[in-house]
Amino acid sequence: MLVTELIRRKRDGAELQRAEIEFLVNGYTRDSIPDYQVSAWLMAVLLRGMTRAELAALTESMLNSGEVLGFPELPAPKVDKHSTGGVGDKTSLIIAPIVAAGGLFVPMISGRGLGHTGGTLDKLESIPGFNVNLSVADFRRVLAQCGAGLIGQTAEIAPADKKLYALRDVTGTVESPYLICASIMSKKLAEGIDALVLDVKTGSGAFMKSEKDAVFLAELMVETGQRLGKRVSALITDMDQPLGRAVGNALEVAECIEVLEGRGPADLRELSLVLSAWMFLLGKRVNTIEEGRELAEKMIVSGKAREKFREMIRLQSGNAHVIDNPALLPQAAYRAEVKSTASGFVTAMMCEQFGTACVLLGGGRAKKEDSVDPAVGLMVHKKVGDRVTAGEALCTVYYNSSERLAAALPLIEQGYTIGTVALLHSRPLVHRIIGDTDGGLARSV
Amino acid sequence: MLVTELIRRKRDGAELQRAEIEFLVNGYTRDSIPDYQVSAWLMAVLLRGMTRAELAALTESMLNSGEVLGFPELPAPKVDKHSTGGVGDKTSLIIAPIVAAGGLFVPMISGRGLGHTGGTLDKLESIPGFNVNLSVADFRRVLAQCGAGLIGQTAEIAPADKKLYALRDVTGTVESPYLICASIMSKKLAEGIDALVLDVKTGSGAFMKSEKDAVFLAELMVETGQRLGKRVSALITDMDQPLGRAVGNALEVAECIEVLEGRGPADLRELSLVLSAWMFLLGKRVNTIEEGRELAEKMIVSGKAREKFREMIRLQSGNAHVIDNPALLPQAAYRAEVKSTASGFVTAMMCEQFGTACVLLGGGRAKKEDSVDPAVGLMVHKKVGDRVTAGEALCTVYYNSSERLAAALPLIEQGYTIGTVALLHSRPLVHRIIGDTDGGLARSV
Repeated sequence: MLVTELIRRKRDGAELQRAEIEFLVNGYTRDSIPDYQVSAWLMAVLLRGMTRAELAALTESMLNSGEVLGFPELPAPKVDKHSTGGVGDKTSLIIAPIVAAGGLFVPMISGRGLGHTGGTLDKLESIPGFNVNLSVADFRRVLAQCGAGLIGQTAEIAPADKKLYALRDVTGTVESPYLICASIMSKKLAEGIDALVLDVKTGSGAFMKSEKDAVFLAELMVETGQRLGKRVSALITDMDQPLGRAVGNALEVAECIEVLEGRGPADLRELSLVLSAWMFLLGKRVNTIEEGRELAEKMIVSGKAREKFREMIRLQSGNAHVIDNPALLPQAAYRAEVKSTASGFVTAMMCEQFGTACVLLGGGRAKKEDSVDPAVGLMVHKKVGDRVTAGEALCTVYYNSSERLAAALPLIEQGYTIGTVALLHSRPLVHRIIGDTDGGLARSV
Repeated sequence: MLVTELIRRKRDGAELQRAEIEFLVNGYTRDSIPDYQVSAWLMAVLLRGMTRAELAALTESMLNSGEVLGFPELPAPKVDKHSTGGVGDKTSLIIAPIVAAGGLFVPMISGRGLGHTGGTLDKLESIPGFNVNLSVADFRRVLAQCGAGLIGQTAEIAPADKKLYALRDVTGTVESPYLICASIMSKKLAEGIDALVLDVKTGSGAFMKSEKDAVFLAELMVETGQRLGKRVSALITDMDQPLGRAVGNALEVAECIEVLEGRGPADLRELSLVLSAWMFLLGKRVNTIEEGRELAEKMIVSGKAREKFREMIRLQSGNAHVIDNPALLPQAAYRAEVKSTASGFVTAMMCEQFGTACVLLGGGRAKKEDSVDPAVGLMVHKKVGDRVTAGEALCTVYYNSSERLAAALPLIEQGYTIGTVALLHSRPLVHRIIGDTDGGLARSV
């Protein structure tokens, strides 16, 4: 097969065959096709798009470029959730215990913070001792014992994605929804799951700012997953303001514990319940989404989800006492309050700026090599729609360096828009659902 | 400047600034920007296009990446002609002597055969002893002495083009009219000429099969040349059948000598006169295209052009006796005739196939490293519109290997379409003229 010919065909908008895509992905992974040919092909894909069949072939080739886990020994379906990333988006730490407590298995392979968004691994590592670098054998043991495990990507999983992502990063080809879809789905499907719930964020704090782009990506991911034999649904959810109140690794873990105790911010609790319900449904643990939601609520109210989180932490070498005493989590040395200069209503928050502020405080990475300060971050007291009076605290900043505080403060101050008129309509938490809806799936059970 | 950012802007259809394009071209030429970023950018250019300002900046950056010749010592304008390539396209060997005999200077840097098309250098090298690899100093001396010199591209001229072309060749980015324009014009303008006539071929034997594509490329080249301060016109000329009758290096040289003697095929003679006339006009040797044509005819009728060709050959170490005795040119060992199986009229010729047939005989290169057999080729006896009777010779094949003959024959046989009805309209030799037309320029002299 002539690589130049494959590039030219994609350039001219033709459809490549499955074997041709496999040839490209394998050749690149094994270093027999050079970077400069693959980057030209990636740019052609970005500008020309792909058919759904091509996308499935790309995803499958990337998936098969490395180890694909399987858990035939586990006695119930394996389900996972993936979020496209946001600010204060911490649902994984709530959902994994709920769904495991409810009887399904959750083999979750997560990522680090990227740009202005946080990462599940960074959050978990704020729990003293927590080890996200389990071997596959240990991951398997943790899963079998408590039903959920959360680890980082290993070098063995989807190496093609690792290599392609590094190339995309320096060739202006990150933003293609097709390439984003293949990257996410190849990693997620390597977990050996039966079903996947996608939380596709939209709004000023999401990578997909417009709902149209979010829906398009969600449709690609749902169809690709289904073509590869998995049950997949996607929820388009709001990221126009931080989710919950905490932004920052240890602060977010503490907030998750609150939710698992039946407290915590309403939006975070609600989204966690909805996502858990969908996981129960796609994992065939329940027959309707309503049943799924009831089961999720029961896991919280009964305290079972909280105990499951304790068990998870313990099995992954973390200090499980943080459940009872969140003060054991890393604490920032200083606090500062951002106060409103006007009275009125919060009419908008520039959500991405709050994420960037947390990164500037040291809570995320500007460069890959940077270390993360687990203690710093924000507690957002006022959110969109809230009434404020001049002088009232909008947000508390937790910091360890006044230099970093100075860099972060303007982003927070300018991140709030205070208007004089209350909003009539607020954005819904769940904008749309794509893929299997409960009825159809329930009947097929 | 961040390369990724420049790639992304071009990808999104934005216009790059002159300094940004220069940065890319210089960085690539000096190996500080890697292949994989440039290939992504080239693909973005191919699919997104360029503005005329970007194209001029790209051409100028490539031009300035190496040596730019200048001939301030020469007492008359320097003009050149460039053809986009065709089958039997040998006008350079006729035009250079005509225009030099007419008092202008022609510093012509030419290329080798590419794909199914022949190359001026290969044709010249079929003249025993002819040396196309002159140093710049020798080139200068030949020019000053006889008014015309024909050499190959040196490593010093437009090195950016050499590097970019090699990358385009393996990344599916050859076909962009913008990149073709920059490649051609950067090399031609490095010759230090005042004016340039472009012969842009269209038809089944051209790289630009459709007239629309040919016109678009011609417009790009004319405007780019003008933006860089040169007088440039383009003629869209026919390449739907071979030009003249000879296809093959030595055969074509012999045909050129015929034209310089006032004989030879009418189409080749006509196109050579028209192109020479345009060179005289753009070189301000005459005031109207009609005067230019008269001057060109006079150079042939007087024998001055023929003597100029003799002088050129002698100065470049070739055996000038070929002028009087073309049998001194390399001769193929065997001949074969392709005869018509039907009676009627030639209604079409698949022009590219005749070029490919010549390559298969050994008269061109399948790979860059291949050597060329100067003696082989075709003499086309019947062309579009001609009446033929069954059994009559359509074409004579000159060959040195029966194996190669066997490969070439089917292409020639199937290259002719014989119909029963004569064509009412034939394609014109010159389809269109783009750029300065005679009136406007004449008045500005």
